[in-house]
Amino acid sequence: MRIDHVGLAVRNLEHSLTTFEPLLATRATTPERVESQRVRVVFLEAGETHFELLEPTEADSPVGRFLERRGEGMHHVAFRVPSVDVALAGVRARGGRLIDEVSRIGARGRRVGFAHPSTFSGTLVEFVEAP
Amino acid sequence: MRIDHVGLAVRNLEHSLTTFEPLLATRATTPERVESQRVRVVFLEAGETHFELLEPTEADSPVGRFLERRGEGMHHVAFRVPSVDVALAGVRARGGRLIDEVSRIGARGRRVGFAHPSTFSGTLVEFVEAP
Repeated sequence: MRIDHVGLAVRNLEHSLTTFEPLLATRATTPERVESQRVRVVFLEAGETHFELLEPTEADSPVGRFLERRGEGMHHVAFRVPSVDVALAGVRARGGRLIDEVSRIGARGRRVGFAHPSTFSGTLVEFVEAP
Repeated sequence: MRIDHVGLAVRNLEHSLTTFEPLLATRATTPERVESQRVRVVFLEAGETHFELLEPTEADSPVGRFLERRGEGMHHVAFRVPSVDVALAGVRARGGRLIDEVSRIGARGRRVGFAHPSTFSGTLVEFVEAP
């Protein structure tokens, strides 16, 4: 199973890019607002996978509350799957908890869905459909 | 820059593998003790990269204190580089803080070194030399 991206929660995209662009020797995508998640995001290539940097647009949003509780840092890992709904059903069939019972549209217009972090030892797992 | 692995801090390797092995549809490596870090680790393939699950062997160890402070979850991201010492020097030259001023031997007998999480917006970054 291939990692689509690793999501990092940050306070300010532009500030974080001053260290991540030199580290990865690449340029980030243009920031995109994802209204449903109340974040601004950019993606940076890293081999066959990517980093997604997420900046909350409101303090009282999932990523805003994550920053308040835990500070900046690693937020989630996303796997590329043929069908998010099939992947979510697989987690449920194995007794796992889900955040999203069915897929929805996320960043880059892609179909996504999240499992609950308690399912995978505290790691927030997202599934993303290939473009 | 290619991700060598994503490190996850867990309380019990065997328990976490009951969910990660089905998720990734793969088998983990045999657990390895890394005495210098006071952890037991396993690796699982995910496309061109891997997950490293880390279980502390002592509460008063870096990963043990991480679990105490933040609970289980994403711990670090490791990049594969030709030279860890060159990569560390690059971070320092760009004004970043380091945990390891010079490389040392880590899991799988590979040369490794860590930057300080404050350098990369709260994300703990490791460099690993190719085998």
